[in-house]
Amino acid sequence: MSYYFKTTLNNVSFDEAIDKTVAALKTEGFGVLTEIDLKATFKKKLDADFYNYKILGACHPQFAYNALQAENKIGTMLPCNFIVQERETGTIEISGVDPMASMMSVENESLGAIAGEVRDKLKRVIESI
Amino acid sequence: MSYYFKTTLNNVSFDEAIDKTVAALKTEGFGVLTEIDLKATFKKKLDADFYNYKILGACHPQFAYNALQAENKIGTMLPCNFIVQERETGTIEISGVDPMASMMSVENESLGAIAGEVRDKLKRVIESI
Repeated sequence: MSYYFKTTLNNVSFDEAIDKTVAALKTEGFGVLTEIDLKATFKKKLDADFYNYKILGACHPQFAYNALQAENKIGTMLPCNFIVQERETGTIEISGVDPMASMMSVENESLGAIAGEVRDKLKRVIESI
Repeated sequence: MSYYFKTTLNNVSFDEAIDKTVAALKTEGFGVLTEIDLKATFKKKLDADFYNYKILGACHPQFAYNALQAENKIGTMLPCNFIVQERETGTIEISGVDPMASMMSVENESLGAIAGEVRDKLKRVIESI
């Protein structure tokens, strides 16, 4: 079982890929609540060189609210992350987590149903980028 | 299998519990890269009342770096979240994700070894709060 959905872009810059991802998420009702720049973090904390890599934390408020009503500790697995990375210059890979995979260890039927709906939305986000 | 480690505090405010969590994480080498205030988010986006609930995204730079060398898409499951919630006024519950649970669907032995080490550290964080 794969734990992510993925697409690859070749004709855009890294920053444009971020913008496209944020716009595609918005179309499906997700806001980006957090953004982590791993390249900058590793440089600052470890003095290590890394490639362009950002983690966007995407949240659909209504689904998040419903998920927390079903399972109050599910915040340990929220928001749903999208990663944008450029391991090879000019090739931008965008991956979104599959919440059915990350929440696999949580035994809760109501939550499972919500995670399934969110999964469909996140898959559409990747397909639309 | 539980997907989190938990502790409960009764004699502190919500904000003090956050400070204690951040300090305990720091002792084990974790910085807090993101903070999501779900109560404020649900009020703003849904006009819904919610109890105090924050999600702290904790990152140990060296372990994160090693994890990404082993599995470049593992950023979909980073950082490791700690949640602080006050469902009943005066009772603050702090839970940290078990990365062995959230990463259960990822088939990668090297990553599994790293997740196991991080798990031990996060467990110590909760025990020390």
